[in-house]
Amino acid sequence: MTTETPKPLPKPYLVRTAVDALLADLTEGHPVPAERELAARFGVARETVRQALHELLVEGRIERRGRGTVVSKPKLTQPLSLKSYTEGAQTMGRKPGRLLVTWQDIEATPDLAAALDIREGELAMHLERVLLADGQRIGLESSYLPRHRFGHFTDTFDPATSLYAAIRASGVTFGSAVERIETVLAAPREAALLESTTAMPMLRLNRRSVDTEEQPIEVVRALYRGDRVAFEALLTDR
Amino acid sequence: MTTETPKPLPKPYLVRTAVDALLADLTEGHPVPAERELAARFGVARETVRQALHELLVEGRIERRGRGTVVSKPKLTQPLSLKSYTEGAQTMGRKPGRLLVTWQDIEATPDLAAALDIREGELAMHLERVLLADGQRIGLESSYLPRHRFGHFTDTFDPATSLYAAIRASGVTFGSAVERIETVLAAPREAALLESTTAMPMLRLNRRSVDTEEQPIEVVRALYRGDRVAFEALLTDR
Repeated sequence: MTTETPKPLPKPYLVRTAVDALLADLTEGHPVPAERELAARFGVARETVRQALHELLVEGRIERRGRGTVVSKPKLTQPLSLKSYTEGAQTMGRKPGRLLVTWQDIEATPDLAAALDIREGELAMHLERVLLADGQRIGLESSYLPRHRFGHFTDTFDPATSLYAAIRASGVTFGSAVERIETVLAAPREAALLESTTAMPMLRLNRRSVDTEEQPIEVVRALYRGDRVAFEALLTDR
Repeated sequence: MTTETPKPLPKPYLVRTAVDALLADLTEGHPVPAERELAARFGVARETVRQALHELLVEGRIERRGRGTVVSKPKLTQPLSLKSYTEGAQTMGRKPGRLLVTWQDIEATPDLAAALDIREGELAMHLERVLLADGQRIGLESSYLPRHRFGHFTDTFDPATSLYAAIRASGVTFGSAVERIETVLAAPREAALLESTTAMPMLRLNRRSVDTEEQPIEVVRALYRGDRVAFEALLTDR
């Protein structure tokens, strides 16, 4: 290895760095200068500025508001843990909320039956909710629970509240969960429910939780707005 | 709660489900029927089929090959753990590889200096590599290490091999790491290095690792192709 003389950096990189520096000094809700103004200021093509602003939009640093573009609130960081969405949001100082979309019993498909350790065609409870943080739509979560275990929720559970709190209150202790994280595009229905578009990258989270006796509690299929949510994990050598 | 009569499902959903079912029966490398053919088969507009195929492309179920579209290899699942990329790839039965892009000493910026617990302007080693699985480009990883700790790698480390193995062989034991996962679009340079485009969603992973004495080992800033990689975590209540 030799300590090389750095090569000249490509223009898109320089423009992105310059816009980042400019945004670092602005607070949430502050207007972002127009594309034309930035192109003139940096002496580059509007297309170069447009690409940088598009990246920042996808990353959630800026957002459209009315006719203009403003600096966004920082992303909600969701810890990867057995804690609920509620606890994650509260840690960030955000007010959690939920809007009920679907609540119905469904007959388990072969995959779902295997994951919940029930018979194919046996009933599972499907709860689909939009997750809110300070009133902003940040995710769409579908939870599937074995009806024989949590059927009483029909009479007792308030879908505007934490499902994990209700599960714990029913005497069940979470043992472990396997979570899978991917990036996907939203389907039209999902994009509409999240007030986003089918062009914006989303984070897809699939989770299967079991109790301390390894008995299935739930299967979760959630979609988070990529511009509003990040996941964080603490890894240790155990 | 009442068990509602399910509402009729929207067409895009039905088409996506039908295409999913069709792909489930095809093996890797098998050609995917053309858009026009699928539109005729399902009796829907080509635009509806196009949206479903675009979703599947982003999710890595299908990929362009030459003039056609074929079924992809399953995604590489990277465990969120203190194990190296090498170990993750091998667990999946994929052959890991690395292409060196950049290897140079840089003067630490204030952020990097704080993360590596060195003085601002002190030297850090920057190693940037394309990660390969069975020869396919799946990620672009930048590692930053404190030069005073790992400067001897200049003479000993082979950048085509595992950095974690070299760190461990030098007597350092990983203690813990904090990882942050987001979705972003690649900048033009990154897209080119990953043989992808600036329109394809990527997974951004930022990691800071410390040893068992809480002394910083590395800061990593990696970008994974969203169509080729998923992350998986095992969560337990500890």
